[in-house]
Amino acid sequence: MTDRVDRLRERLEEPLLVSDAANVFYLSGLESSNAALLVEPERVRLFTDFRYAEAARAIDGVEFVEAKRDLFQTLAELLEGTIGFEATSLTYERHARLHAGGIDLVPRYGLVEELRAVKDEDELDSIRRAGAIVSIAFERFADQGDIVGHTERELAWRFEQFLHEANADGVSFPVHVASGPNAALPHANPGGRRVEEGETVIVDAGCVVDGYCSDCTRTFASGPLPEELQRAYDVCLDAQLAGLDAVRPGASGPGVDSAARDRIEAAGFGEAFGHGLGHGVGILVHENPRLAQESRSTLESGNVVTVEPGIYLPGKGGIRIEDLVVVTDDGPEVLTPFSKELRTLD
Amino acid sequence: MTDRVDRLRERLEEPLLVSDAANVFYLSGLESSNAALLVEPERVRLFTDFRYAEAARAIDGVEFVEAKRDLFQTLAELLEGTIGFEATSLTYERHARLHAGGIDLVPRYGLVEELRAVKDEDELDSIRRAGAIVSIAFERFADQGDIVGHTERELAWRFEQFLHEANADGVSFPVHVASGPNAALPHANPGGRRVEEGETVIVDAGCVVDGYCSDCTRTFASGPLPEELQRAYDVCLDAQLAGLDAVRPGASGPGVDSAARDRIEAAGFGEAFGHGLGHGVGILVHENPRLAQESRSTLESGNVVTVEPGIYLPGKGGIRIEDLVVVTDDGPEVLTPFSKELRTLD
Repeated sequence: MTDRVDRLRERLEEPLLVSDAANVFYLSGLESSNAALLVEPERVRLFTDFRYAEAARAIDGVEFVEAKRDLFQTLAELLEGTIGFEATSLTYERHARLHAGGIDLVPRYGLVEELRAVKDEDELDSIRRAGAIVSIAFERFADQGDIVGHTERELAWRFEQFLHEANADGVSFPVHVASGPNAALPHANPGGRRVEEGETVIVDAGCVVDGYCSDCTRTFASGPLPEELQRAYDVCLDAQLAGLDAVRPGASGPGVDSAARDRIEAAGFGEAFGHGLGHGVGILVHENPRLAQESRSTLESGNVVTVEPGIYLPGKGGIRIEDLVVVTDDGPEVLTPFSKELRTLD
Repeated sequence: MTDRVDRLRERLEEPLLVSDAANVFYLSGLESSNAALLVEPERVRLFTDFRYAEAARAIDGVEFVEAKRDLFQTLAELLEGTIGFEATSLTYERHARLHAGGIDLVPRYGLVEELRAVKDEDELDSIRRAGAIVSIAFERFADQGDIVGHTERELAWRFEQFLHEANADGVSFPVHVASGPNAALPHANPGGRRVEEGETVIVDAGCVVDGYCSDCTRTFASGPLPEELQRAYDVCLDAQLAGLDAVRPGASGPGVDSAARDRIEAAGFGEAFGHGLGHGVGILVHENPRLAQESRSTLESGNVVTVEPGIYLPGKGGIRIEDLVVVTDDGPEVLTPFSKELRTLD
């Protein structure tokens, strides 16, 4: 952790108030909904309330300051001088309170997030384990088959049990299962719809290991598919492989996105792929870098990203295929090895 | 939903940009991480991206506007004139982007949150069911017994399975199980510690039904307790009943908190109760009103709050007893009927 604080210090022009919960966890290891760090050249203070006091006291390299439950009241009272703040997570109201406390506030953007985008070996180990667990759960889910007639909700719970049995600490988000026409809604929640024969079923899942997430999607068939969906699957897989192939240090976010998107557009499904190709994964399941047309990211060795093209055909169904990969000088290291060949589960 | 928008409109001095995800859900029913509503006198526009387009189009009474994935870029381009914004959830950076777009921004505080604090009958039905489910899970957990030698993590998962089997849509937060010295840490995550004989085990859990949360805590014994812990349990239960007794329309947040806190202080455990007595529960598991010394809330009929005193004895153990109740003119309606008598599970 101290190493991370040192790398952050190199980027600072003034003390930084770190109030984003994921950034606090990254720098201190403390998981808290009500904590902040003040990183100065010679010391780091950790402000949090009674509930986290014992955990905070046990952290090396930081001075614990017990705050009120209203953390920002304590900060407005105790802090002074010129202080940078995290402009993309601090709310308007908290900024106004610190300002009213006489602090000279400087907006800063993404300082800790940029460090977080390049994972160290400890982080990669956790994410590798999280990727392996979700792959094991997909193996079990596919081997069990028996999806026709079950609700999306039942299948999501079945998948979550497999994640737990494979030793996940928890899920990185509620397991998504979307079948038939619901699979055309990229962010549908699993519901009461029962899987019918001959449609696509998207399963999007991830788990947490030691505070780090994985994220993986596969699309299954519940019997022989209509020709358009079968063709869309083949196109989506081709695009996913092209996207993976473009993942390397120095590649741009829009460039990797285009590598996959061009294949989908060439096949006539361009309108049906309305989201970006991928996103970084770490402490949060969505973080930097982004693989999308509007992204300004350039990939670096140590980034962990998803590669997840989708084709959504309203009223008919949808397909998404997603791997989680580490960017390395030798090409992408895929952390979600479960097969991407179309599998039919009855 | 339209009724909620109408009540909101009565409170507005200018159009309001609702960007808080829970508030968007409350007013429109849309669950999305990337959506905003603009509530004007004659219309409501719903801005969200491709992923939520089909769901957004299906909502009555709102005009759907497809936004970019970068929602605030779309908002900065399309909005104009004088617009209120939610100061406690809008980030500094998003405010700055809207401001740069030429919008005349007015900070507003808690307009939707205050509506949300008073539940309507539909909302109460969902929360009642969520309270009943968590109570059923506690019954099953207590009936099964068999906790000594199991890890906190195993017990948390066991509890989560009971919630699922009782038809919860999901958990309102990861189930907390804290045993022995960990029970003195009010927000410890369940870990690898195995329950030993003769200690307290805190189980804090809640579930979601139709988008609404429940929240309930009980403390069990894993065999005969040391005298101090047994006494702390009795004091905590006495304080919890005194707190419940003070819950009525017109009571103040600090007043209800004191009703319980005074009992704990009188018994000499005042230092060991470092958090507020309770909080509102609804779409979020922590919302208004607050029962605490620093609260400015006054209870109203239709509020749903927790009553949860705790006594934490570092190195020795802890106790917390929490009910979820509706504030009514006839006194508190307890939604978590599972017994509060100390139960010993081996």
